[in-house]
Amino acid sequence: MPLNTFLVALDLIGTFVFALSGAAEAVKHRLDIFGVMVLSFAAATAGGILRDLLIGSVPPAAISDLRYIFVPVVAGLVVFLLPRVVDRLRFAVLIFDAAGLTLFVISGTYKALSFGLNPVAACLLGVLTGIGGGVVRDTLVREIPTVLHREIYAVAGLAGAVVVVLGQHWNLPPTVVAAVAALLCFGLRMISIRRHWQLPTAGPNNQTPA
Amino acid sequence: MPLNTFLVALDLIGTFVFALSGAAEAVKHRLDIFGVMVLSFAAATAGGILRDLLIGSVPPAAISDLRYIFVPVVAGLVVFLLPRVVDRLRFAVLIFDAAGLTLFVISGTYKALSFGLNPVAACLLGVLTGIGGGVVRDTLVREIPTVLHREIYAVAGLAGAVVVVLGQHWNLPPTVVAAVAALLCFGLRMISIRRHWQLPTAGPNNQTPA
Amino acid sequence: MPLNTFLVALDLIGTFVFALSGAAEAVKHRLDIFGVMVLSFAAATAGGILRDLLIGSVPPAAISDLRYIFVPVVAGLVVFLLPRVVDRLRFAVLIFDAAGLTLFVISGTYKALSFGLNPVAACLLGVLTGIGGGVVRDTLVREIPTVLHREIYAVAGLAGAVVVVLGQHWNLPPTVVAAVAALLCFGLRMISIRRHWQLPTAGPNNQTPA
Repeated sequence: MPLNTFLVALDLIGTFVFALSGAAEAVKHRLDIFGVMVLSFAAATAGGILRDLLIGSVPPAAISDLRYIFVPVVAGLVVFLLPRVVDRLRFAVLIFDAAGLTLFVISGTYKALSFGLNPVAACLLGVLTGIGGGVVRDTLVREIPTVLHREIYAVAGLAGAVVVVLGQHWNLPPTVVAAVAALLCFGLRMISIRRHWQLPTAGPNNQTPA
Repeated sequence: MPLNTFLVALDLIGTFVFALSGAAEAVKHRLDIFGVMVLSFAAATAGGILRDLLIGSVPPAAISDLRYIFVPVVAGLVVFLLPRVVDRLRFAVLIFDAAGLTLFVISGTYKALSFGLNPVAACLLGVLTGIGGGVVRDTLVREIPTVLHREIYAVAGLAGAVVVVLGQHWNLPPTVVAAVAALLCFGLRMISIRRHWQLPTAGPNNQTPA
Repeated sequence: MPLNTFLVALDLIGTFVFALSGAAEAVKHRLDIFGVMVLSFAAATAGGILRDLLIGSVPPAAISDLRYIFVPVVAGLVVFLLPRVVDRLRFAVLIFDAAGLTLFVISGTYKALSFGLNPVAACLLGVLTGIGGGVVRDTLVREIPTVLHREIYAVAGLAGAVVVVLGQHWNLPPTVVAAVAALLCFGLRMISIRRHWQLPTAGPNNQTPA
C-alpha cells in the first residue's frame, strides 16, 4: 500500500472516530436523529473546516469531498442504531480518537505550512484541526469543551505539530518526520489517559497533580 | 410582478421573520436592546453568512447588502417595543418561519450549485442556510439548538434541497422546480407542527412516536 | 513617536488586555493552563479574525502576525501564575479593556472601509471587531455573552465607528477623526461604568433605569 493511500485511510478513520464521538454525545443529550447527524458531522469536520477558512482554502475539503460527508453519516447511523455497541467499545473509541487527533494535527500542520503560514501559526492551525471538532461538538450541547479542562490532549497535539514544523525547517524526510510526530502525539495521549495526567489549573485551590 | 422581484420579496420576508424569532428569544432571556438587535441580526443572517464563507463568496451578501442590515433592525425594534403583539401572533410567526426556512433552503441550494459545489454539498449548504441562523441564535443564549431536538425542521429543508438538486440535474425549468421544492418543504414543516411529528431519538428509553 | 508606532502600540495593548480578560474568565471556570491559553487567545483575536474572514482578508492578521500569538500567551501566563494580582487590578483592567474596545473598533472600521465595504457594514464590522472576542470567550465557558446584557459597551463602540465613517465621508484628517472617535467611545464606556448605565430591556417587567 503506497504511503498516500495509507494517509488517506488514516484520515478517513480519524474522521469516522471523531464522528462517533459526536454522535455518542448527541445520543447522551437525547437529540433526535438529525441532531445525531449534525453532531457527527460537526465533530468530524469542524476542525478542518475552520483551518481551511482561516488559510483561505475554500470550499473546504470537508464540503467538496463527498467522503467527508458520507463517513459521518455512516458513523451517525451506527451510533444511533447500536448505541450499546459504542458503549461497550468505549476504550477502543478512546484509542481511535487519539489516532484521529494525531492524524488531524499532522495533516493540518502540513497543510498550513504548504499555504505559506509561519511555523508558529502552522502549529496553531494544526492543533486547531485536531481539537476544533470537539470544541464545536461540546458547545452545541452546552458543555464546556472537554479539551479546555481534561487531561493532556491539545498538548499532545502541539508536540506533534512542533515536530512537523521542525522537521520541515531542517529538511528531514517527511515520512520520518510524520512517523516521529505521530508516535509522540499518540504516545503522549495514550499515557495521559492511562495515568490520568492532567494539566495544572489556577485559582484559589491551586493543585497540581503530584 | 416578475419572478425575481417575487423571490427578493420572499427573501426579505424570510429575513424579517427569522429576525423576529431572534429578537423574541432575546426578550425571553431579558437581554438589553443591543442584545435584541444582535440576536435579531444573527438569527436572520448567520445561515447565509456561514454558507457564503464556506463557498468563498465574501463579503457575504448579508453584510454588503444594506437591506439585510435594516430588516433585522426593524424586526428587533418591533419586538422590543411591542413584545405582546409578537406573543399574540405566535402561530403567524410559525407560519412565516416555515416560509423563511423554505425560501432560505431553496436560495441557498441554488447559490451553492452556482458556485460549482457537488449536489450533496449543495444540499448540505442549502439546509445550513435555512437552519444556521437558529443554531447561532440558540447558542448565544445558551440553549441547545432547537433544530437538533424538536419536530421535523431540517428534514423538511433537506427535502426541498433534494428537489432543487434533482431538478437542476434533470434540467427542469427552475420556476417549476422551486415551486415543487417550496410546496414540499413548507408542507412538511406545517404538517409536522400540526401533528407534533418528531424524529426518533436514540438511547436508554428509545421511543419513536407511534 | 510617529503616529503609526503609537497605533501599533495601542493595538498590542488592546490585544494584551482582552487576553487578560479571557484568561481571567478561564481561571474563574477552573480550566487548565491550556484552557487559559485558548480563552486568552480567543478573547484577544476572535473579533479581528471574524472581521478578516468576513471581508476576505485571509489568513487573518491574528494568525500571520506572530505578535498576536505571543501577546496572548504572555497574558495567559501572567494570569495563570499571578491570579491575585489581576484580581487586585480589577479596575485597571476595566480601563484597559475600554481602551482595547476603543482601539479595536476604530481600527476595525478603518480596515472594513479600506476593503470597500459600505459605511453601515463598516460600522457593523468595527463593532464586531471590538466585541467579537468577548462573545466567543463567554460562549466557550457557557455564559450568555456579557455584551448582550450588561451596561453600555457595544453602543460606545458603535458611536466611535460612526465618527470614523462620517469623518471618512467628509474627508476630514484621519488623526483628528480617530482622536474624536476614541474620546467618544472611551468616554462613553468609562462614564457608563462609573454610573452603572444600562440599556433598557424589554419584557414583562420592563424597567428602564431612571
